[in-house]
Amino acid sequence: MLEPERILRLEADAVVLLDQRLLPLEEVDVRCESAADVAEAIRTMVVRGAPAIGVAAAYALALAAEHGEDLDAADRVLRDSRPTAVNLAWALDEMRDDPTRAHARRIHRDEVERCRRMAAHTADLLSPGTRALTHCNAGGLATGGYGSAVGALLAAWERGLLEHVWVDETRPLLQGARLTAWELEHASIPHAVIADAAAASLMRAGEVDCVITGADRIAASGDTANKIGTYSLAVLARHHGLPFYVVAPSTTVDLRTPDGGAIPIEERDPAEVTERFPARNPAFDVTPAGLISAIVTESGVHRAPFEPALAGAMAV
Amino acid sequence: MLEPERILRLEADAVVLLDQRLLPLEEVDVRCESAADVAEAIRTMVVRGAPAIGVAAAYALALAAEHGEDLDAADRVLRDSRPTAVNLAWALDEMRDDPTRAHARRIHRDEVERCRRMAAHTADLLSPGTRALTHCNAGGLATGGYGSAVGALLAAWERGLLEHVWVDETRPLLQGARLTAWELEHASIPHAVIADAAAASLMRAGEVDCVITGADRIAASGDTANKIGTYSLAVLARHHGLPFYVVAPSTTVDLRTPDGGAIPIEERDPAEVTERFPARNPAFDVTPAGLISAIVTESGVHRAPFEPALAGAMAV
Repeated sequence: MLEPERILRLEADAVVLLDQRLLPLEEVDVRCESAADVAEAIRTMVVRGAPAIGVAAAYALALAAEHGEDLDAADRVLRDSRPTAVNLAWALDEMRDDPTRAHARRIHRDEVERCRRMAAHTADLLSPGTRALTHCNAGGLATGGYGSAVGALLAAWERGLLEHVWVDETRPLLQGARLTAWELEHASIPHAVIADAAAASLMRAGEVDCVITGADRIAASGDTANKIGTYSLAVLARHHGLPFYVVAPSTTVDLRTPDGGAIPIEERDPAEVTERFPARNPAFDVTPAGLISAIVTESGVHRAPFEPALAGAMAV
Repeated sequence: MLEPERILRLEADAVVLLDQRLLPLEEVDVRCESAADVAEAIRTMVVRGAPAIGVAAAYALALAAEHGEDLDAADRVLRDSRPTAVNLAWALDEMRDDPTRAHARRIHRDEVERCRRMAAHTADLLSPGTRALTHCNAGGLATGGYGSAVGALLAAWERGLLEHVWVDETRPLLQGARLTAWELEHASIPHAVIADAAAASLMRAGEVDCVITGADRIAASGDTANKIGTYSLAVLARHHGLPFYVVAPSTTVDLRTPDGGAIPIEERDPAEVTERFPARNPAFDVTPAGLISAIVTESGVHRAPFEPALAGAMAV
């Protein structure tokens, strides 16, 4: 697995982020010397993935505290950098009482540990010979290490349960084709990248056993915001009788958001889709709880009705 | 509308094809001086779209006859250039008894005329304020002029029924983002390109009224092969209670193919998806007849059960 410190770390005077925009072609670090720098790196997706964004924000706040920056201002610029993921707000809330680097590092370490526990719970759901389909990158790059959905695939592979992974390329920014495939290659897991629109016909041909994705925010109802295209997969999985699993840490659950309708969906620059013609570019969609077979957190496997299950998981 | 001769034509010594790979950035002609040249242009998608491929093959056979080429060999190299569309075989069969340029031009003219009739029939199905979603390019570029699905949008726009078109970008080769958007821009029809995986959430948000696509081959049962991603849209349309219309000329109907299982699906170079990792790249999928609200040919609007309706349409 990719070392957590390789993905993001706090050095003496900077938050250092592996530039995920350049992978897999180049492995370049970006040094952020202020909270504003980190906010810009989040906004421009140098670092992305709900838990990794949270960890980056925690490091940014620790750095801001050491530099004597105005912590309210630092909090605000970070909190506003991306609207959909809730881990960002969670990490900033966590850091306020103890904005030290030791605390930020603990948040990072805990996030990776949660991934390992989620992964084990998810692997318990899978049978030998599983051909899983995943979307975007819910890997170590997205969580600061090990990964949520990709972590589950790693655990399933280690147990001999995984035969193959179909990787949605995930337009417009191709996080599947660039990041998830790269992580699976590192782990020597058999995989093939597909155009997002090819998932349905693979399901119909009987070449997919389940869909496993991460999440950017899970409402109390279980409605789940994740990368645009996730909802499409959930509908297709239902049509083909396939289980649809969401794997995410409790830090992605937002009990204060009652349901999917209350989750803000980020609209990104249409030029990410095409520079030549008008375009629409919602970065996320919401999958209603009714299409989700199970939500797996570090606390275990939760099934509908999700509200009490998620509240219980958060109380642990 | 784009002039049919601009898309493809037979000159004194060459079949001249507008290079659809370079649109919308450049408008460059490719001159093909033999049947083998045209076959290569079809294979490499200088010209694509089932009816346009058929017209190109007709011109190629006329040129081969004038040049004294072996017509059996010319037929074979053209017929094998792409496997999924049936118009190619239809046009070659048509040309064998009369392999003249006059005949090829008549095939071209008839194809465009069929488009106009289909378009009118499809527009009859639409209500004012329609926001349609289309996939790939079933436009004039794909048919040799006017277009099937895009032709229907042109007719609906002329009648004041069309409010907006959502254009699936259509990975991996982006025929939607490059070709359909270009044709809609020419016609001044409001449109926005979207990532293919965004269609579902637009449907859920109530921003789509119907899906309109073309076809590469329609089996006797009504099962329809079209660009990869079409089947996905049909499932999503059904889930959201939206009509799913297939618009195609009778030359795309293949009564000798009983159902979708008998349609060969072309697998193209995985490098079209990604050059860096393993990939799968089926170019087409099959939408089962049960998910299709209506198939519109030049003969009219056909609804399930499709077999007698399509046989009747072919007998006209």
